[in-house]
Amino acid sequence: MTSGNGVQASDVLIIGGGPAGLTAAIYARRAALHTVILERGAIGGQLLETDMVENFPGFPEPISGQELMDRMRAQAQRLDTEMRLAEATTLESQGDLWRVTSTNGTFMARCVILATGAHPKELDVLGAQELKGKGLSYCATCDGYFYRDKPVLMVGAGDAGITEALFMTRIAREVFVVVRHPEADPKAIRATPILRERALKHPKIRFLWNQVVDAFRGDGRLESVVLRDLSDGRRVELKVDGAFVKIGYAPATSWLHGVVEISDEGYIRTDAWMRTSRPGVFAAGDVREPHGRCAQAVVAAAEGAIAAMQAAEYVSEGGG
Amino acid sequence: MTSGNGVQASDVLIIGGGPAGLTAAIYARRAALHTVILERGAIGGQLLETDMVENFPGFPEPISGQELMDRMRAQAQRLDTEMRLAEATTLESQGDLWRVTSTNGTFMARCVILATGAHPKELDVLGAQELKGKGLSYCATCDGYFYRDKPVLMVGAGDAGITEALFMTRIAREVFVVVRHPEADPKAIRATPILRERALKHPKIRFLWNQVVDAFRGDGRLESVVLRDLSDGRRVELKVDGAFVKIGYAPATSWLHGVVEISDEGYIRTDAWMRTSRPGVFAAGDVREPHGRCAQAVVAAAEGAIAAMQAAEYVSEGGG
Repeated sequence: MTSGNGVQASDVLIIGGGPAGLTAAIYARRAALHTVILERGAIGGQLLETDMVENFPGFPEPISGQELMDRMRAQAQRLDTEMRLAEATTLESQGDLWRVTSTNGTFMARCVILATGAHPKELDVLGAQELKGKGLSYCATCDGYFYRDKPVLMVGAGDAGITEALFMTRIAREVFVVVRHPEADPKAIRATPILRERALKHPKIRFLWNQVVDAFRGDGRLESVVLRDLSDGRRVELKVDGAFVKIGYAPATSWLHGVVEISDEGYIRTDAWMRTSRPGVFAAGDVREPHGRCAQAVVAAAEGAIAAMQAAEYVSEGGG
Repeated sequence: MTSGNGVQASDVLIIGGGPAGLTAAIYARRAALHTVILERGAIGGQLLETDMVENFPGFPEPISGQELMDRMRAQAQRLDTEMRLAEATTLESQGDLWRVTSTNGTFMARCVILATGAHPKELDVLGAQELKGKGLSYCATCDGYFYRDKPVLMVGAGDAGITEALFMTRIAREVFVVVRHPEADPKAIRATPILRERALKHPKIRFLWNQVVDAFRGDGRLESVVLRDLSDGRRVELKVDGAFVKIGYAPATSWLHGVVEISDEGYIRTDAWMRTSRPGVFAAGDVREPHGRCAQAVVAAAEGAIAAMQAAEYVSEGGG
């Protein structure tokens, strides 16, 4: 099938090559759909930055994020998925097809699976880049277990941060929660009152009020954090084995506003079958609402599978 | 924590040891919850009966269902999950805890994850048992790809059967659909009209009206099916490489009626976070509504992960 301007149309165009996009490709190819993945960075997504994965089902021994994603990529390639390095810039319908422009050409497809992910917002302080994945983590569900009976630090006092602090009380010896407002400020902890109360009275949680992280320190592995008191500017160095940062996510959807329905927080809205507000456009993985908690590779993969099964139905039934 | 009658209470009791239950255990243990799995048959669930799995993400080469499940079991065991062979018979609340009686003792837990699965209803005809997984499949999404350009047979003319028949038109050379009612019967095909029309006019689909499968034949691998015409009792033998049976699912929930909310079709109702109608009771995998289409291991696993994350929150926040 070719479009009006002679570009070959695929059955499915998948945008994003993380666990959601690659699993979508595996399922789409096994449904014999002509499948193309666009990825702007490296095939594998955020998991490439993950040191060790212990919770992806099927791997009894911890596996590096890189190796897990290499395996998924090989699986998609073995099934003849086409992969293109390109960043999608616009999505629009053209007749029965969808047209995607990118930094590397135009693509036409009968349906599109949006799997562009969401990056956790990162702290821009000294040492944060170097120690990421080496004691500094953006996901307690993923990495918390590595800190059994150790002191850890949590940055973030919204629902997600306090939830993860409470989660860590089951694992860690002590959980320090850095709050950038003074204790007297009733809005210092933004989490819902029930979470706030539980955290405030928890014997393992210690709040460090009116402070911010100035630096992460350690020689190849996090050893301490430097905290700065906002009232007097004084710095203290606190020894911790792990630090978790939970200050929000940034879904990669700015290019999709006005095309599909997007939540106030920037996530793509879908139904339980990953269908967006537009027929033939599906979304899967961290970019999709409901997100709300720590993004997990196996969940993203499952959503990719469901989106591809729906895409196969859509195409079989004559859509696009 | 011990209950009134001296039985040690776990944090989480997971009922069912398939992909959903084992992944729930992996996540629960990494949240440092004391975790027990009850399984009535063999740890691994339905996938143990699956010859080769090609679509579980992370495995570029096809892997046997047995090996995949052995790996998940080893992963749960490495994280110190307790496993008990027992069939749960009742679930009831007792104070802040949940109490499960089984064929092998009583278990108490702060929360429960129901992951008992759903078995596809099987055809009870000659050869069906022997050739299951050897040409006779209960899931086209899973196994369809192995029959590229081959003739296949579909049994089942409801939504699921017709959807899978349409799905198979993209892969197979020809798709025979066996219908047990005569063509003149307007209800012969129970699928929704739009699916029915598409199937009726599809060039690759051939309906075999007023017939039933009498036997599956083949020497270690399906070679043909014997069809019986209901009007005159005559039999014909049709050569096919694959046969798919889609005549419904039987979720394992009869023991749960009146305890948690269950749909008319017998599936457990949950919200998107796998919470059932009862606080502290979660459901994951094929036993959970919405099901509606071919159960996939990666989807069950993801639901197990979500249920366990919710269970960890429930326990951290003082539930149970």
